[in-house]
Amino acid sequence: MPKLFILSRDEDEYRRLIESVQLPELEISKDPKECDIVLGEPKLIRDALPLLTSLKWVQSIYAGVEPLVDPAQRRNYILTNARGVFGELMSEYVFGYLLFHEKKILERISTQQAQQWQRPESGMLRGKTIGLLGVGSIGAYLAGAAKHFGMTVRGFTRESEESKEVDQYFHGDDLLKFANGLDYLVSVLPRTNDTNQIVNTTLLNALPPRAIFINVGRGNAVDEFALIQALNQGKLAVAVLDVFEKEPLPEDHPFWTTPNLYMTFHTSAISYPEDITKLFIQNYQLYRKGKALKYQVDFERGY
Amino acid sequence: MPKLFILSRDEDEYRRLIESVQLPELEISKDPKECDIVLGEPKLIRDALPLLTSLKWVQSIYAGVEPLVDPAQRRNYILTNARGVFGELMSEYVFGYLLFHEKKILERISTQQAQQWQRPESGMLRGKTIGLLGVGSIGAYLAGAAKHFGMTVRGFTRESEESKEVDQYFHGDDLLKFANGLDYLVSVLPRTNDTNQIVNTTLLNALPPRAIFINVGRGNAVDEFALIQALNQGKLAVAVLDVFEKEPLPEDHPFWTTPNLYMTFHTSAISYPEDITKLFIQNYQLYRKGKALKYQVDFERGY
Repeated sequence: MPKLFILSRDEDEYRRLIESVQLPELEISKDPKECDIVLGEPKLIRDALPLLTSLKWVQSIYAGVEPLVDPAQRRNYILTNARGVFGELMSEYVFGYLLFHEKKILERISTQQAQQWQRPESGMLRGKTIGLLGVGSIGAYLAGAAKHFGMTVRGFTRESEESKEVDQYFHGDDLLKFANGLDYLVSVLPRTNDTNQIVNTTLLNALPPRAIFINVGRGNAVDEFALIQALNQGKLAVAVLDVFEKEPLPEDHPFWTTPNLYMTFHTSAISYPEDITKLFIQNYQLYRKGKALKYQVDFERGY
Repeated sequence: MPKLFILSRDEDEYRRLIESVQLPELEISKDPKECDIVLGEPKLIRDALPLLTSLKWVQSIYAGVEPLVDPAQRRNYILTNARGVFGELMSEYVFGYLLFHEKKILERISTQQAQQWQRPESGMLRGKTIGLLGVGSIGAYLAGAAKHFGMTVRGFTRESEESKEVDQYFHGDDLLKFANGLDYLVSVLPRTNDTNQIVNTTLLNALPPRAIFINVGRGNAVDEFALIQALNQGKLAVAVLDVFEKEPLPEDHPFWTTPNLYMTFHTSAISYPEDITKLFIQNYQLYRKGKALKYQVDFERGY
């Protein structure tokens, strides 16, 4: 009989949700040693790995699983991460900030406060070109939203070309070609060795000065010093960052005083137990039948 | 041979665009008396009506054609308005402001300025219910965007039920049923006798206090005093107005100091000559063949 161990700050909520659907044969246990299944946060699971002696399958409640793919950790189990659930929320975040800038919402608030009937022309998403660094399930969702708003979509991926909503794919050495002329650059890249500082001075210089850069992936993808320089020198119009090389952002980090930089603090897409539980249930049905699980992580690739 | 008179502040741009496509037989003329076709702004055309003695067809460059459907004016010509071109821009405006509020962008800017790593939970569009007052071509476009963001869509119309993206239609006496429980109420109603003050105290009281109201239609749809009361008393969370009963908004209007009210000044969707010229060309081809024109206005109905 499968036994589930839950390792999350939302343990009670997960327990309630899973018990409410009465999964066949599944028992939720408090003893890590006897559990073959773990549902939870990668960091907490990494710390518990030595105790999880019966482990066969981990379902991460996050997309990022860096603590578990660390080569220093054991890998003799199946790791699945959370995918297909963050696209909608990431899309709200990305298009919320893009529209905030194009519609000049801050300027309009000032005009109103000055009690002036003024009609500055807004920018628009329609006709613009967005470049997605990484086109997994989140990137594909962003591509769909971009098409809805009448935009051209470029995708930069290692090799995959799965999303039909991407107008043009780029790979490998074509990074600068991909960046050339973009209005918006959005990174949804996971943290891997290959994604370190992919957004560096060379890439930033390839963007037009009107461009907006948004990072909702991982902080390692950005050369933070290069980004500060680009913003200070007006080589980039605006940056919006939800993730950073070091989180929480250190108190003396120059980002705090960099112009045209909007920061939010790793909140662009929250992991909701309702969403993750649905995913877990799907995968549990497959697990019971001995079938391949959805969203399996390749430990070597890192995502 | 058809002769076209252009009556717009963008006359030169329209002339250039239309000449560049070399429409068969069409001559652009400076003499209003000999012209059977007029392309332009409803107000300017109304003032020129007495001179337009050969008039057969008017293509308005705006959606709203109030000056021309005024019963005091002659109506012995075909009037077509601009439709199908403002949906995308209106959608950018409406979802820009909704996301601005749900993503708490202003609060996040303050948090950043205070140099605090804080992670307040955002709201989201996903799962919310939006009610559209009016579902013509603009309303249908907004409905599509709402579905994209995972929302439930209600539509209130006189009788039409054309958009497949609307989950539930309401008509006539069901206005309060339509409003009950809405998260967002958006008016795209044209100015007609039937739409006067449809957003009044009764309707506003039927909305939950968390609701956001956006008006991108016409100012006559709102009982402005009732809206001020609702905002002052916290019966409505936020209102976003792009149109007003009187424009420009008078200097002593109480809206200038009403809380939780965001105002822009009739700029939610600009009429771009490129868009309108495409529409005009389509209609001109139909006109030449003696076929029914697209987007013909019913003078009695007013839109």
